[in-house]
Amino acid sequence: MNNFTFNVGTDIRFGKDRLGELAPVLTDFGKTILLVYGGGSIKKNGLYDRVLKELSDFHIIELAGVEPNPRIETVAKGAKLCAENKVDAILAVGGGSTIDCAKAVAAVYGSPKEEPWAVIEKRNYDGPALPIVTILTLAATGSEMNRGAVITNWQTNQKLGMGGKNLLPKVSFLDPQNTYSVGKYQTAAGSADIMSHLFENYFNNTPATDVQDGISEGLMRTVTKNCPIALKTPTDYDARANLMWASTLALNGLTGNGKGGAWSCHAMEHELSAFYDITHGIGLAILTPRWMHHVLNEENAPKFAQYGRNVWGITETVPMMAARMAIQKTYDYFKACGIPMTLPEVGIEDDSKFEEMAKQAVAYSAIATDAFVPLQVEDVVKIYQASMTEQSYL
Amino acid sequence: MNNFTFNVGTDIRFGKDRLGELAPVLTDFGKTILLVYGGGSIKKNGLYDRVLKELSDFHIIELAGVEPNPRIETVAKGAKLCAENKVDAILAVGGGSTIDCAKAVAAVYGSPKEEPWAVIEKRNYDGPALPIVTILTLAATGSEMNRGAVITNWQTNQKLGMGGKNLLPKVSFLDPQNTYSVGKYQTAAGSADIMSHLFENYFNNTPATDVQDGISEGLMRTVTKNCPIALKTPTDYDARANLMWASTLALNGLTGNGKGGAWSCHAMEHELSAFYDITHGIGLAILTPRWMHHVLNEENAPKFAQYGRNVWGITETVPMMAARMAIQKTYDYFKACGIPMTLPEVGIEDDSKFEEMAKQAVAYSAIATDAFVPLQVEDVVKIYQASMTEQSYL
Repeated sequence: MNNFTFNVGTDIRFGKDRLGELAPVLTDFGKTILLVYGGGSIKKNGLYDRVLKELSDFHIIELAGVEPNPRIETVAKGAKLCAENKVDAILAVGGGSTIDCAKAVAAVYGSPKEEPWAVIEKRNYDGPALPIVTILTLAATGSEMNRGAVITNWQTNQKLGMGGKNLLPKVSFLDPQNTYSVGKYQTAAGSADIMSHLFENYFNNTPATDVQDGISEGLMRTVTKNCPIALKTPTDYDARANLMWASTLALNGLTGNGKGGAWSCHAMEHELSAFYDITHGIGLAILTPRWMHHVLNEENAPKFAQYGRNVWGITETVPMMAARMAIQKTYDYFKACGIPMTLPEVGIEDDSKFEEMAKQAVAYSAIATDAFVPLQVEDVVKIYQASMTEQSYL
Repeated sequence: MNNFTFNVGTDIRFGKDRLGELAPVLTDFGKTILLVYGGGSIKKNGLYDRVLKELSDFHIIELAGVEPNPRIETVAKGAKLCAENKVDAILAVGGGSTIDCAKAVAAVYGSPKEEPWAVIEKRNYDGPALPIVTILTLAATGSEMNRGAVITNWQTNQKLGMGGKNLLPKVSFLDPQNTYSVGKYQTAAGSADIMSHLFENYFNNTPATDVQDGISEGLMRTVTKNCPIALKTPTDYDARANLMWASTLALNGLTGNGKGGAWSCHAMEHELSAFYDITHGIGLAILTPRWMHHVLNEENAPKFAQYGRNVWGITETVPMMAARMAIQKTYDYFKACGIPMTLPEVGIEDDSKFEEMAKQAVAYSAIATDAFVPLQVEDVVKIYQASMTEQSYL
């Protein structure tokens, strides 16, 4: 296990009907609030009205319409609103994109002498930041309890991760009921995102990380059990609760701290989304079993077998066979969640850009050197190619 | 899953050789430090000298000789030292007892108008408290990342738990190397304490707590794998690292938040320690399999079978049989760790006080109403009785 620092002091208010705590929480920071939200689903499901009712004696400024991949222009607009209105705190109501946008707004507002994109390009932000409070509406990214954000600049065709300790949300409200109205496709995509965060940390070469791996396996079992329940019965509180808390813990440091390495599927999916604008979690689900199969070898088969045993209950004792069974289980699980499991099904019909995408995936990440199994351009192309057709691993 | 709040902002500095960060951490709070430690093991293993060297330009006041069950007189002495010297922060170097003592000192010093024991008797402390920094030397109680403390008053024969949000350590240094010199008996006892914290939260009637249970199972696998390694090779860094991080996460809220209920074995062990002064973790190891077997029934057998499957890899499909196998595994594991697994082996030769102890265990806890399986006086007597002789559960 490597040395690490774990310092994640977000005050999590988990559970049903706790919005009565929102006004007291925000009052600690001040009375002028930037309310950040996305495409309006919170207006449809009534959350917007409930929030405004709780905050009737606050001065609310709105930053609406945050995109699924939040754009630097929206961030800049939010920072301008903060400056014009002397905002005291930011309240993000939404999923990871909305929360990411709120973090970037806090950083850009904290850097009045710099261009907005220049702040993002620094990647590590340690300057001042407005306090951020979140009300989560989607179980997926974990942004509600970590320091990171991903912001897109379509002018430069860049999508960059950035973060910093002052961007950690101060308080996050996690009410599983707020995810009841999330549709099947987004529920499945969000769950695939959670699984991918767990996989990326789990398949890793740092030795002796039993704590992190054991927690990951428990969270994987949680997701694979509860996602199908939530898909069948969107208002199943317990399923939504387990998915929501799993999403938060999957990416707050617990499963990744103490490990080195580089994430493979996220680097490859990044290019799929950038070139074809597909849903991030869906791209991850498609790539993951192909990546697993591509990197599987005699040396790492025991780790895949451990995954099979502790997540899927596979009792096969020959590691390579157990590993293949585990990969098949992964594939079948995503398919059973209704995820289109080939690229043509999400509109990617030809392979002409795979070489270019693979080059970028390798260039903009450390997968060629630091990944679980290092991936060169030709590896990435093969994984994209295998994603074009149905696969079987047994 | 019940509603819960998770707000555990201790800054964990995990890993090898990070004492260089100690002076900068303490400087944030001030230059006058109360150094709290126990019976002198830190002088033998060199940690005391290393800490003082790092803090050469601080004003250090010492509270030495904290007892394994820290006493209110020691707490009062520490609070007096804080007042006399205008202490800025408390540095606890030791295991759970030392850290618990530091928390109580912080609370008593924060309550100058009250008698020291009156502060503890309130149980919930929400007043001011000196900042606490810890250097952990024993993997067991989790006190390094939670708000609780247990303090003993031998004048009134009381041992009370107390806690509060301001008593959460600000920073905790977790260097696994600092546990190399912990002997076999204390290593096994500490690991049994960790397992018991996990069991107490795991065997619980709140439905749909997959996240908490999955994390618990992962931490249980971590302990049962790594404790035997640490017993065989006390300087195995990876084994010590996994035990240390597991101990912290077992009792910081992750495995218990969102659940109701009452802890059974701790309530029963409390009386064993109070009447016979045996080591807490050893008492827990002796009681646990007897308690499991006593409460096992058709209704809860599937939970024990789940424990067997996910912690011990038991593939038996008949729940009651799998449950008995899991209980046997638990018993055998503790025995293999060198723990004396009957009460006579720890000097409790006669059963004359069991009735009185059982009455107190029931009177001073909620086990008769809120436990996984409610326990009356006669149940507790039976569990104590079963602890007098070797057991077999198959």
